[in-house]
Amino acid sequence: MTREDRNLNLDLDRRRRLGMVEAVWGADKTVEQILAAAHRLAAAGETLLATRVDETKAKALRQQLPTLCYHPQARCITLGTLPTTPWQRLALLTGGSSDLPVAAEASIALACHGVEAELIADVGVAGLHRLTARLDHLARFPILIVCAGMEGSLATVVAGLLPQPVIAVPVSVGYGVSSGGHVALQGMLASCAPGLCVVNIDNGYGAAMAALRILRMENTRG
Amino acid sequence: MTREDRNLNLDLDRRRRLGMVEAVWGADKTVEQILAAAHRLAAAGETLLATRVDETKAKALRQQLPTLCYHPQARCITLGTLPTTPWQRLALLTGGSSDLPVAAEASIALACHGVEAELIADVGVAGLHRLTARLDHLARFPILIVCAGMEGSLATVVAGLLPQPVIAVPVSVGYGVSSGGHVALQGMLASCAPGLCVVNIDNGYGAAMAALRILRMENTRG
Amino acid sequence: MTREDRNLNLDLDRRRRLGMVEAVWGADKTVEQILAAAHRLAAAGETLLATRVDETKAKALRQQLPTLCYHPQARCITLGTLPTTPWQRLALLTGGSSDLPVAAEASIALACHGVEAELIADVGVAGLHRLTARLDHLARFPILIVCAGMEGSLATVVAGLLPQPVIAVPVSVGYGVSSGGHVALQGMLASCAPGLCVVNIDNGYGAAMAALRILRMENTRG
Amino acid sequence: MTREDRNLNLDLDRRRRLGMVEAVWGADKTVEQILAAAHRLAAAGETLLATRVDETKAKALRQQLPTLCYHPQARCITLGTLPTTPWQRLALLTGGSSDLPVAAEASIALACHGVEAELIADVGVAGLHRLTARLDHLARFPILIVCAGMEGSLATVVAGLLPQPVIAVPVSVGYGVSSGGHVALQGMLASCAPGLCVVNIDNGYGAAMAALRILRMENTRG
Amino acid sequence: MTREDRNLNLDLDRRRRLGMVEAVWGADKTVEQILAAAHRLAAAGETLLATRVDETKAKALRQQLPTLCYHPQARCITLGTLPTTPWQRLALLTGGSSDLPVAAEASIALACHGVEAELIADVGVAGLHRLTARLDHLARFPILIVCAGMEGSLATVVAGLLPQPVIAVPVSVGYGVSSGGHVALQGMLASCAPGLCVVNIDNGYGAAMAALRILRMENTRG
Amino acid sequence: MTREDRNLNLDLDRRRRLGMVEAVWGADKTVEQILAAAHRLAAAGETLLATRVDETKAKALRQQLPTLCYHPQARCITLGTLPTTPWQRLALLTGGSSDLPVAAEASIALACHGVEAELIADVGVAGLHRLTARLDHLARFPILIVCAGMEGSLATVVAGLLPQPVIAVPVSVGYGVSSGGHVALQGMLASCAPGLCVVNIDNGYGAAMAALRILRMENTRG
Amino acid sequence: MTREDRNLNLDLDRRRRLGMVEAVWGADKTVEQILAAAHRLAAAGETLLATRVDETKAKALRQQLPTLCYHPQARCITLGTLPTTPWQRLALLTGGSSDLPVAAEASIALACHGVEAELIADVGVAGLHRLTARLDHLARFPILIVCAGMEGSLATVVAGLLPQPVIAVPVSVGYGVSSGGHVALQGMLASCAPGLCVVNIDNGYGAAMAALRILRMENTRG
Amino acid sequence: MTREDRNLNLDLDRRRRLGMVEAVWGADKTVEQILAAAHRLAAAGETLLATRVDETKAKALRQQLPTLCYHPQARCITLGTLPTTPWQRLALLTGGSSDLPVAAEASIALACHGVEAELIADVGVAGLHRLTARLDHLARFPILIVCAGMEGSLATVVAGLLPQPVIAVPVSVGYGVSSGGHVALQGMLASCAPGLCVVNIDNGYGAAMAALRILRMENTRG
Repeated sequence: MTREDRNLNLDLDRRRRLGMVEAVWGADKTVEQILAAAHRLAAAGETLLATRVDETKAKALRQQLPTLCYHPQARCITLGTLPTTPWQRLALLTGGSSDLPVAAEASIALACHGVEAELIADVGVAGLHRLTARLDHLARFPILIVCAGMEGSLATVVAGLLPQPVIAVPVSVGYGVSSGGHVALQGMLASCAPGLCVVNIDNGYGAAMAALRILRMENTRG
Repeated sequence: MTREDRNLNLDLDRRRRLGMVEAVWGADKTVEQILAAAHRLAAAGETLLATRVDETKAKALRQQLPTLCYHPQARCITLGTLPTTPWQRLALLTGGSSDLPVAAEASIALACHGVEAELIADVGVAGLHRLTARLDHLARFPILIVCAGMEGSLATVVAGLLPQPVIAVPVSVGYGVSSGGHVALQGMLASCAPGLCVVNIDNGYGAAMAALRILRMENTRG
Repeated sequence: MTREDRNLNLDLDRRRRLGMVEAVWGADKTVEQILAAAHRLAAAGETLLATRVDETKAKALRQQLPTLCYHPQARCITLGTLPTTPWQRLALLTGGSSDLPVAAEASIALACHGVEAELIADVGVAGLHRLTARLDHLARFPILIVCAGMEGSLATVVAGLLPQPVIAVPVSVGYGVSSGGHVALQGMLASCAPGLCVVNIDNGYGAAMAALRILRMENTRG
Repeated sequence: MTREDRNLNLDLDRRRRLGMVEAVWGADKTVEQILAAAHRLAAAGETLLATRVDETKAKALRQQLPTLCYHPQARCITLGTLPTTPWQRLALLTGGSSDLPVAAEASIALACHGVEAELIADVGVAGLHRLTARLDHLARFPILIVCAGMEGSLATVVAGLLPQPVIAVPVSVGYGVSSGGHVALQGMLASCAPGLCVVNIDNGYGAAMAALRILRMENTRG
Repeated sequence: MTREDRNLNLDLDRRRRLGMVEAVWGADKTVEQILAAAHRLAAAGETLLATRVDETKAKALRQQLPTLCYHPQARCITLGTLPTTPWQRLALLTGGSSDLPVAAEASIALACHGVEAELIADVGVAGLHRLTARLDHLARFPILIVCAGMEGSLATVVAGLLPQPVIAVPVSVGYGVSSGGHVALQGMLASCAPGLCVVNIDNGYGAAMAALRILRMENTRG
Repeated sequence: MTREDRNLNLDLDRRRRLGMVEAVWGADKTVEQILAAAHRLAAAGETLLATRVDETKAKALRQQLPTLCYHPQARCITLGTLPTTPWQRLALLTGGSSDLPVAAEASIALACHGVEAELIADVGVAGLHRLTARLDHLARFPILIVCAGMEGSLATVVAGLLPQPVIAVPVSVGYGVSSGGHVALQGMLASCAPGLCVVNIDNGYGAAMAALRILRMENTRG
Repeated sequence: MTREDRNLNLDLDRRRRLGMVEAVWGADKTVEQILAAAHRLAAAGETLLATRVDETKAKALRQQLPTLCYHPQARCITLGTLPTTPWQRLALLTGGSSDLPVAAEASIALACHGVEAELIADVGVAGLHRLTARLDHLARFPILIVCAGMEGSLATVVAGLLPQPVIAVPVSVGYGVSSGGHVALQGMLASCAPGLCVVNIDNGYGAAMAALRILRMENTRG
Repeated sequence: MTREDRNLNLDLDRRRRLGMVEAVWGADKTVEQILAAAHRLAAAGETLLATRVDETKAKALRQQLPTLCYHPQARCITLGTLPTTPWQRLALLTGGSSDLPVAAEASIALACHGVEAELIADVGVAGLHRLTARLDHLARFPILIVCAGMEGSLATVVAGLLPQPVIAVPVSVGYGVSSGGHVALQGMLASCAPGLCVVNIDNGYGAAMAALRILRMENTRG
């Protein structure tokens, strides 16, 4: 038993308790630590979802574990059989193409739980007609996840026009004052539109899990 | 027509579009501005909900409009007939008694839309048994709104234990680093528990509207 | 000669150099200091414009100088004959009624220089139709000044829809993260709409002077 | 049709609406994403302007699209025929030679719209005579764009001496407190000189577009 | 012996060690604490200088100790015989009249040590001629103390034009980004002018003591 | 049963679990809420310690509950019999007399648990001899609590000279950069002296409880 | 004698004064500077502990000094004989595996002083059962060091459940708002649990020294 | 004439005006820009001092201009004959060896102007005896420059013990809260010791020029 194994204490009870797989946050973990988690989860018959895994780590991991799947835009790794027929869909909007990696992380995390996300990209408010032309289409989804950087006002405009739950994901795109995504985050929190929910900057995974909590509630009770 | 009237441009279409009344943010408005809004909404047959109205303003308003109702803990004013039989319930947790005004604002805002909030007060994690003893009770609610100041870890602990949508409201209670509620806000955003949704500091109204978006979705589709 | 007089060193050359009156920033000045400035400017045949003068100071000033005019919403004092026929007009938009004091300061400052500002109030993006219904009207003005608090996205939406110079004024309206107007400021600076200009929080006067620089350029060269 | 193409939703209406080309923000985009945008814009007969493109990306882009032009100091790419005879000129001041990349970005962006910028470099206020010796020359331009890092006081001094519209661009030059350009930004916003307009840190493109809005107004109405 | 007395542990050795009286920071002290210090210093034959004493406290103090002297603009109290013939002079510049209280505190603190400060008020760079017209006069002083709020660029301009030691005092005058004096402070620290020294915001006393250290060095060694 | 009572959920198990009384944070509580807690604790035979109670609240409380004891410097209320013979002592140092209220809060909180704190006031490092003269005396205490505002370097100097546990309490004394106590806090956290422990700004109570945890460990195990 | 030697002024008195070895902060030191310190300490018969030494530096150091020992997870170097039989033990908890490097630094620093740390890894509150299942085991240790990133609530939960001294170490793990460890730090300082002690972000060494101060006190007095 | 030459506008008047050479800030300049400045200054018979030049740039520069001199610890380049016999000396203290690069920059800048700096390294207050043992030696210098990172309290302790002008240079050494040098900066500004002067973080050059202003004053007037 390696040191990585001994110090690993996965929350294998999470699916029973919360209906979610435990995602492995890959950014600060070594290849050995991620591998140990992958083996432990596989042994328990559980899916692996690791986020924030860069290409170098992914390559090293695949050499050890050729069956894992790397999603480069989302910087995610999955291992195990994902649900093939989605039981639910939602809409995933982005302000610009720089927001796509965060949207992709949300998409993979939802796919691991059987939810399909339809991407509606590049509808930032600098060209408002791109959004308003799609309102009827958007009205059909139970939940709207909005990924936006810069000043993040896409989330406010969407939540002012449509009645569904809106989960806003600030994206660390920008420079100067908007560098790091803090302005998008604060603009979403300060939004004048009522009932916007916000997650941490770049937290595509978190937005997916928030949506899953909502969808699952609907599914089991409605 | 007074100047207050001329410069008033209420969003009377909000109920049709979003299923919500337009709430009036009372903090930076004069008594005359709130009165003008009240009359305009009343004329449209719409409910008035004004938040952040202090006692002095409330007294002045009641002299002009004796039928309005002031909720002192919530610092809210309502006018018009509120729904009497709730069509839905949710749980509203607070860490300590200093969080009660924010919880009360959420409660009134929900009541205006026919949702009843059950208050589960004073369950902060410094005395964890107060929360764990109530897990079975909490499991019965479709949504959990958690109001907490200081370091705000109540929201993290709740979202780690229970599968429902959790809407976290940071409260501006505290001193030193936690003064203004920024630590609670950031702690909730940075939470290690998956799928926590966050609104602005002290934004009881926003949490209520986020919950309403979720409940309404369930109601119409389930 | 009082101490206030001796330590007073007004920029009486400003009209020649910049085409503007020197505005007196009243917030940190005593009644005596404002009076000394008023007398000095009157002696030079110049208009007085003092900003950020609260009602208590204004009352004390009027007792000493009954001919001065107090504009309570704008918290400004003027003394001397203002231009009566405007030589130019512009549009002054606000997101909500709490932004009106800042808009009023801009309006008075423009009026001192012969420019009329048409107020288009309460067109915040939470109810977007209020803005889009007025696009044709807005297209007629040479300049758009946009005053907005909270997340300030009105400025972004306006600058994405209309080609004129847009001067954005963040307003210190809000609470939690938006308290103090810093989120509106940063959201306007980070705007995804091209060519938005920004001034300091609550700086109605500065927006007016920026507009004046533009209008005067047009006037003398066009 | 590649994924880059499918997720691309350019604002091709921008020239009609705002009289500007849509600039592509290159910093967070892949070579494939920029190429997709270039092809789409070329197909629409529109000019491509991509900002924040580093040399590595530029080289990769030129291998695929040899007709594009890279401007290394400005870190910009252009493709398509730019206007050759400028219809307007303005002055572009810098405090020191470290501000030149930002000024160059503004210059290219203006050139794409037929405006010529005359560079007046290295006139920071630590050696004030460099600026005061050029006041007569500066008085001839309709607009002054001022790029400055450190404490950014060049913009204040310029706006105190000259009556034209002054667009201040804080530059992320400096260390310690001024690292990132935030002091320059805040100093420009807090300026005691009346009517200074500010854009985001390093936002040469934004300053150019703000100037274009002003110049175009003059052109069409004067 | 009162509790205030018992808990008082003045640095009576300061004059021997540093050539300065111990100043009492009055803002967070009770009337009783200031009185106890006054008596202790008087008993030791030492001068009392208390800063940040508001009018209410000053009145209460004078009732107990009628011989003390209150300087209202400086918000300082002195007790004991101050030097009457100054052994040295320096120049004290302010950007605007709102900076006068801080300059006055510096002036009193210098007077307690026999240094006279000549006030050169209201020479902010928005009207640069007010400063440049006084350069010859300023060249005669051994030290220049510059008090300025807003963006604080007066200190930079002065240090770029004159060779003496320049001690910059940021002043908490302003609003929005400059509220609290932080922009002035950071602008002074980031100054492109070489060899500017900075003290804390509003720290007139500190600037005076820094000047005293310099002047005393010159006096005893030169 | 009042609403205050119903929403009160005190951690009466705290003494068993942690050996501490539950302290009531009085700042954001109403008189009614504090009274409800006092009655509940009294009924359980437990001591009441309420911190951050201002004089107005204290007076209102004493009218309802004349047996409670108010400690004005500490802004604390106690009710019930406190231990009379201390079982342990420690040293409580302050930098200046403005730190005394925070030290007093720590002192009361320790007294509630039978620990006596010896106050060693006014030993800030601006006059270092005041501290170094007391080193032998300080060496006799098992724990040193250091309360300091401004730049807070007293804690660093103490921890560099003495081997005991040092608990540093930053105090919100100061102005400009040190306003709010954040510089003292960060200076203590960044200390070059090894093994300094820090609590929140002004958190005298927290320092006392940290000391109690240490002392109790010693008591029960040594 | 090299320049590195001449400018080296180690605190060789620290063991006598504080009972600790002087740790060398390796992050900003050159290989030559660390070597000079190693030789000086070896000459004095003292142990070397250097923290924040990356692998490149460590390799270069070992080429010059083959007897030194590198601890890669802790990024520490030791030289000299460490105590072999521990005289005391404590518990070292981590929230997730990304906190292990900081825990390892604390562990090495304790080992240098004869204290053994038992690692209890991966007990973050997102899966609370991992902690509550170990409460009896944790109750046996005299001190609990808690290393946690993200929102850091593990420290609060531990301090609410157990009576021992708790030393909280915020870890710079996370992204968005929690990037850099500041949210964990502030959450620990703002904790609603009584008597939590906090050290700087990632300061495993500091936590170890704080624990050593406490343990040594117990050892010599108990 | 190259573009670098055309855009170069050196302040060649600085020596006449301020008695200083213009230093070239090398961090954001290209090799070509530094070379152009070197040639221009050489042509004017002036010394070149370029700061913040890394080794790669230095190597490239020396290939073009073999007579220039690179000072690696200070990261400075000089060209031209420096004064050989110092006309004045001062003391340069550092808290730890990580502060040496900043001290070296100050030293070179002083040497360019004929002032010798005696380095007194590694006297941080964690081992206070290292400083107090040198007080008599330090008393002999006219000025004390103190470079310190972490919490920066060395400057406070020095200024409390010695009467000379003290110029404090915060150093960007540290991690967590002290990362970037901001805590050292703020601790120096907030210092309880009277009359401390502060310059920007890592600004060794600025401290040297502040000292030069003081020494020159003494020299010409004393």
